[in-house]
Amino acid sequence: MKEKAVVLLSGGLDSTTCLAMADRAGHEIYALTIRYGQRHAAELRAAKRIAKAYRVKRHAVLHIDLAAFGGSALTDRHQMVPKGRSLKAMGRGIPATYVPARNTVFLSLALAWAEALGAGHIYIGVNALDYSGYPDCRPAFIRQFERLSRLATKGGVTGAWRARVHTPLIRLSKAGIIRLGRRLGVDTSITHSCYDPGKGGRPCGRCDSCLLRAKGFKEAGMADPITG
Amino acid sequence: MKEKAVVLLSGGLDSTTCLAMADRAGHEIYALTIRYGQRHAAELRAAKRIAKAYRVKRHAVLHIDLAAFGGSALTDRHQMVPKGRSLKAMGRGIPATYVPARNTVFLSLALAWAEALGAGHIYIGVNALDYSGYPDCRPAFIRQFERLSRLATKGGVTGAWRARVHTPLIRLSKAGIIRLGRRLGVDTSITHSCYDPGKGGRPCGRCDSCLLRAKGFKEAGMADPITG
Repeated sequence: MKEKAVVLLSGGLDSTTCLAMADRAGHEIYALTIRYGQRHAAELRAAKRIAKAYRVKRHAVLHIDLAAFGGSALTDRHQMVPKGRSLKAMGRGIPATYVPARNTVFLSLALAWAEALGAGHIYIGVNALDYSGYPDCRPAFIRQFERLSRLATKGGVTGAWRARVHTPLIRLSKAGIIRLGRRLGVDTSITHSCYDPGKGGRPCGRCDSCLLRAKGFKEAGMADPITG
Repeated sequence: MKEKAVVLLSGGLDSTTCLAMADRAGHEIYALTIRYGQRHAAELRAAKRIAKAYRVKRHAVLHIDLAAFGGSALTDRHQMVPKGRSLKAMGRGIPATYVPARNTVFLSLALAWAEALGAGHIYIGVNALDYSGYPDCRPAFIRQFERLSRLATKGGVTGAWRARVHTPLIRLSKAGIIRLGRRLGVDTSITHSCYDPGKGGRPCGRCDSCLLRAKGFKEAGMADPITG
C-alpha cells in the first residue's frame, strides 16, 4: 500500500516540483492549497490544474482570510508589491511580501490533515536560497516545527504516529529547482509564480517572484513556457 | 499606551476567563475567534456577546473548514460526541473530541495576527488538568510553540518583536477557573461550553464539556446561571 503524503501546493514552480518529488517517491498524495486572501486567483487555478495533472487522491482547498490581519503586501491592499528590484536589493532583509507566520499556519494545517489521515509525510516547497529572506523557509524553522508536531498531536504523544516534514528544495537555487523539475517531467507551463498578475493571470514580469523565475530559467538554460 | 494582546476566544468559560485576565492586565485586546467547522453556532454567538461585553478593540472571526480534514467528533458528522462518561473514563487517554493539531492551528493564526499588529502578548485558555488529555493543552507544547514563534517570524529573527504566550489557566481545575472568573467579575451566563447543543444552543448536559462545567460549578459552590 502506498504511504500517504500531504503536499502543500500553491500552484507555483516550487510546490509543483515538490509534488512531483512526492509522486516520484511513490506516495498517495493529498494536495493542500490554502487561499489566504491573496489578491489574485491565478495561483488557485494553477493549483487545480496541477492537482488534476498528477491525479492526486484528494485536493483540499482551504480559504483563510489572513487579509483580516494585514501586515503584508500580499494580503493588504494598501501595501504595494515591490517591483523591478535588483537581486542585491532582494538579498537585503525580509521583503514586504512576507506574510506574518505564513508557513507556521500552512504547516499547522498540513499537520492537522496528516494526523486525520494518518499520513506520515508532509511536503513543503520552501527554499532558503532564493533571495527571499523569509524566516519561515529556513531549515532551523522546519526542524523546530517537527519537534513541535510531536508534542502537538495525539499520535505524537502516544507514539502511534508522526509526520516527517520533507523540504526537498530547501537548499536548491531557482535554476536547480527548474532543472530538477525537468528531470521529473514537471510541466512548468501550468504553474504560476507572479505576486501581482494582470488580467487573465498574466505575470507582471517585474515582481521579485517573476524576476527570480526568469533568472532561474535563464541559468538553467531553458525558456520559460509562460513568458516564452 | 496600552500593550496589545491577541486573545483566542471560543466563547467558553475558559477563554472568557482568559480574556478577563488580559483585560485586568491592562491590555488593548484583539479577540480572535476561529470557527473550524464545528457542528454548532452557539459558541460563536457567545464569543460575539463576550467580545462586546469587554469592549475589545477588535474581534476577528476566521472561518476554517477543518471539517474537510475530519478526524474528530467535533468536526466529523459521522463521529458521535461521547456522552454520559464518568470522570474516570474522561481521564483515560485522548477523547474523540480531540481535533488534530487544533491548538497549533489556533496559535499559528494568533501569532500571525500578533506579528501584524506588533502585539507582544497572546492569551490562550488551555488547561492541562481538566481531564481532557489533549496533548496541545500542556505546558511543554506551549513552550515549544514559543520557541518556534521566534524562528517563524520576521520580528523574532530580527529581534524587533516577540510574543509571549500566556496560559493563565493551565494549572487550574475547572472549579479554580470558575472561582477566578468570579473574582474577575466574569458573567458566566453569556458563555457557552457544550460540544453538542440542542435547539437555540441549549447545552446537552451529557458531553464531557457539560459534565466538567457542572462539576466545576459544584466544587466552586456556585450555581451555573445557564443550567440553574
